Amino acid sequence: MDATYDGDLVRADRRAREQFYDARGYGRPDDGGVALDPVEAAHLLFRGDLDAVVDRRAGGGDRLDFRSFLASTAVSEVEFFVYKDLRDRGFYLSPTRESRVADTTGDFAVYPRGKGPWDDTTAYRVRAVSERAAIAAREMQSLAAVDGDGTGVLAVVDEESEVTYLEVDSPTITGSTHHSLPAIEGDLLADRVLVWDPPVELHERAFYGQQLDQEGDAVQLSLVEAAYLASQGKLTVDDGRSGGEATVVERGRDVEGERFDRRLRVYSALRTAGVVPKTGFKFGADFRTYADVADVDHLGHSELLVRVLPTDHAFAPRDLALDVRLAHGVRKRMVFALTGANEGIDWLSASRLTP
Amino acid sequence: MDATYDGDLVRADRRAREQFYDARGYGRPDDGGVALDPVEAAHLLFRGDLDAVVDRRAGGGDRLDFRSFLASTAVSEVEFFVYKDLRDRGFYLSPTRESRVADTTGDFAVYPRGKGPWDDTTAYRVRAVSERAAIAAREMQSLAAVDGDGTGVLAVVDEESEVTYLEVDSPTITGSTHHSLPAIEGDLLADRVLVWDPPVELHERAFYGQQLDQEGDAVQLSLVEAAYLASQGKLTVDDGRSGGEATVVERGRDVEGERFDRRLRVYSALRTAGVVPKTGFKFGADFRTYADVADVDHLGHSELLVRVLPTDHAFAPRDLALDVRLAHGVRKRMVFALTGANEGIDWLSASRLTP
Repeated sequence: MDATYDGDLVRADRRAREQFYDARGYGRPDDGGVALDPVEAAHLLFRGDLDAVVDRRAGGGDRLDFRSFLASTAVSEVEFFVYKDLRDRGFYLSPTRESRVADTTGDFAVYPRGKGPWDDTTAYRVRAVSERAAIAAREMQSLAAVDGDGTGVLAVVDEESEVTYLEVDSPTITGSTHHSLPAIEGDLLADRVLVWDPPVELHERAFYGQQLDQEGDAVQLSLVEAAYLASQGKLTVDDGRSGGEATVVERGRDVEGERFDRRLRVYSALRTAGVVPKTGFKFGADFRTYADVADVDHLGHSELLVRVLPTDHAFAPRDLALDVRLAHGVRKRMVFALTGANEGIDWLSASRLTP
Repeated sequence: MDATYDGDLVRADRRAREQFYDARGYGRPDDGGVALDPVEAAHLLFRGDLDAVVDRRAGGGDRLDFRSFLASTAVSEVEFFVYKDLRDRGFYLSPTRESRVADTTGDFAVYPRGKGPWDDTTAYRVRAVSERAAIAAREMQSLAAVDGDGTGVLAVVDEESEVTYLEVDSPTITGSTHHSLPAIEGDLLADRVLVWDPPVELHERAFYGQQLDQEGDAVQLSLVEAAYLASQGKLTVDDGRSGGEATVVERGRDVEGERFDRRLRVYSALRTAGVVPKTGFKFGADFRTYADVADVDHLGHSELLVRVLPTDHAFAPRDLALDVRLAHGVRKRMVFALTGANEGIDWLSASRLTP
């Protein structure tokens, strides 16, 4: 069976519509026949269901087989590999992108198994990208944002043509850790604050800082912990003169630059949400978090790994794969905290998915 | 017991030498007494073995206790936390850095447990750094390079004052995978090469590419695999006209920039060493490698994760922690391939260490 390509869609007759659309969810009905997206036509050529696509572009009439259609500019490899992989997994899916010019990205509506374009439900909204693409944070957010219209999924095609699926979501961060503290004093060192006479609640209940020694009573706070406590009016520091939040923040900027402000904003939001952020250094992240801390001697498993990023960040798929793989391996959820020039924080999570 | 600080070393008398150097490996003998590095004096103050250090700088005479000595410019927090942690683990160690000005890095010779500065063996050469420091690749190489003088170790102090140890080494890369191949032809697509009629050795023995389909006979090669095969005279490609290595490399640069050249150089070196590199995308690396491939149906575990970096790369400790943690979790060794403007590659490995 043949079909014709006009530079936008691939069209075939009524028999093709019955065989491809009605029976197996390819394309959409069009003037009695069927209109196929080039990637759908490529898959039908690959399966041998179509023999050739006649290329009518520029008044031509070349008969393209799968090999020459895939090598042409009509279809993107990235889309083809994702389309094929999802079909292999037993899904029907439809391209939803606005432009049909072959590109390194493509969007698909993937229907629940057993459902198709005739039904009204979507299991996944998939964005297909090459591992070489950079994905703007905004793009990730829009993928995460649609409610009740399927899970947002990033499908990354690596250089060996394998597809990795990442579920993208907007998590709600909540916890139950709220402790009241008395006012405390500390020494501001180069990159931390030492509290020599801490109240027991500071570390053992509210889980601020680390003890200097096993038996010791001094507690060392990170600068971000200290800046937060100072902002709450709970800490004053001494580095020769007495100071508060501004003194600690200034030191933070000295050692870490403007990243300190963004990390402090995220730290504060987490504490406000009742969640305890501790360093995520061993996991290569900014923070790991504990939602419900009553007592450090009975600390549960930390649930989230948080990476602080500017809102204009562009994700490299390989970096995403690294973060998500690591988080999965340590049974935590990978969360990105996007902070801009304003006060808001947008939370974005990414996790492994096997459709 | 008191000691005096002259801006360089902390000096104490004969009794201190017996008690600190002879019995517990602090400092070194000096004119009948003992000369202590400030970090050693800080530890003795912390333990209560010294009562105070009299600060003789600028003709002064302040008596500094542990708290004020640590807050002074005499001693670096980063060094103190590493020194203390290694002492807590039962090691004797000596600062070996040239300058004693408090800094965010410090070097230590760590003796085997039960040994000390009066013996002639070193277990670890430790470089202590803050998590905020950037470590030049050259610095990592010099840490790895010394033979027979203890293991090179990077000790990173994170913002919560915990110490993470990374063993740094110069690995030798060898494998036994050598297969001869006939000449093959492929279609050059946007970001891969499709070989429609591949010899069975290509994928199933030498482990190039992936099969397009489970049962299919077409093999898709990544551009870096294709460029290597073309450089060996084994592959010609067709993208409208016939081409070889130059055509594939040009396409590689189009999609990946100059990184493609560096990755190709590393890929070639690995293949030459008898090792099969495959994509490391799922692990966030450039390659994972298999040392001994006879048959893809009996593939062992991949041993290395390889990240390709320029020789002038500066490692952020947090990125190192991420790579090393991930590699450990998947039972692989993290290897960095440093490639410069010349043809050489320097191999550097990093792994978790518990001293």
